[in-house]
Amino acid sequence: MDARLHFITVATRDLDAARSFYRDGFGWEPAMDVPGEIVFLQVANGLMLGLFDALKFERDNGIPGSASSVSGVVLSHNVESEDDVRALVERLAAAGGVVTKVPQPGEFGGIFHAQLRDPNGVLWEIAHNPGWTIADDGTVVFG
Amino acid sequence: MDARLHFITVATRDLDAARSFYRDGFGWEPAMDVPGEIVFLQVANGLMLGLFDALKFERDNGIPGSASSVSGVVLSHNVESEDDVRALVERLAAAGGVVTKVPQPGEFGGIFHAQLRDPNGVLWEIAHNPGWTIADDGTVVFG
Repeated sequence: MDARLHFITVATRDLDAARSFYRDGFGWEPAMDVPGEIVFLQVANGLMLGLFDALKFERDNGIPGSASSVSGVVLSHNVESEDDVRALVERLAAAGGVVTKVPQPGEFGGIFHAQLRDPNGVLWEIAHNPGWTIADDGTVVFG
Repeated sequence: MDARLHFITVATRDLDAARSFYRDGFGWEPAMDVPGEIVFLQVANGLMLGLFDALKFERDNGIPGSASSVSGVVLSHNVESEDDVRALVERLAAAGGVVTKVPQPGEFGGIFHAQLRDPNGVLWEIAHNPGWTIADDGTVVFG
């Protein structure tokens, strides 16, 4: 399918803590790193996650207070098994994540999941979902 | 590349307004639609954007107030030209978007862009970036 979403930019007060969390926790190397400004991580085909200095984030969108915290959003990373959920959550916690929901069956969607905040408050869900696959052409298949 | 981000879930107080905005503005049909609960839109290879009822969003992550508004995040959609930026922003405004930055050269990254909120407050950037491409294997190339 055509890419529709190309960047996700999140306001980040502590870029150094974010860099360590994503590199040491998830094992993702930055695709571009401009110290004091922005760290880009490629997170899907054609898609970049940008960790953007909070003050510059506000200056760019011109909305005072818009960077005060990241709320109302959860980013999800799926893994192959319930044990993989537990192992990755441990690694992310060791890299500076704060667990907000320990690994457990989820209420919605038939998944097993955990949730945690990255060092800047961004909520991540780590999930195993047996009814979810990506077809060869990139189409997501549920159920 | 391997997909690393599989879902982006945003807290949504008005699912009907969101559905209209994405369908009539962007032209994206829902991949799954559970009225009163969640609308899923596929937004990249292997990646779903989930518009999740705000009360259920809070119940799922167990953090009171976490759905009060979406802040600290911008989602970006790139188009082919400056005229395409202007045309899409007009269509999105007609579908319920609120423009927060009219089309103009951006301060960061050499882009031409506009920004607007969806009916639930989610900030979108519509951008033309001449120095940005996606290679055949999905790798994002800057510069």
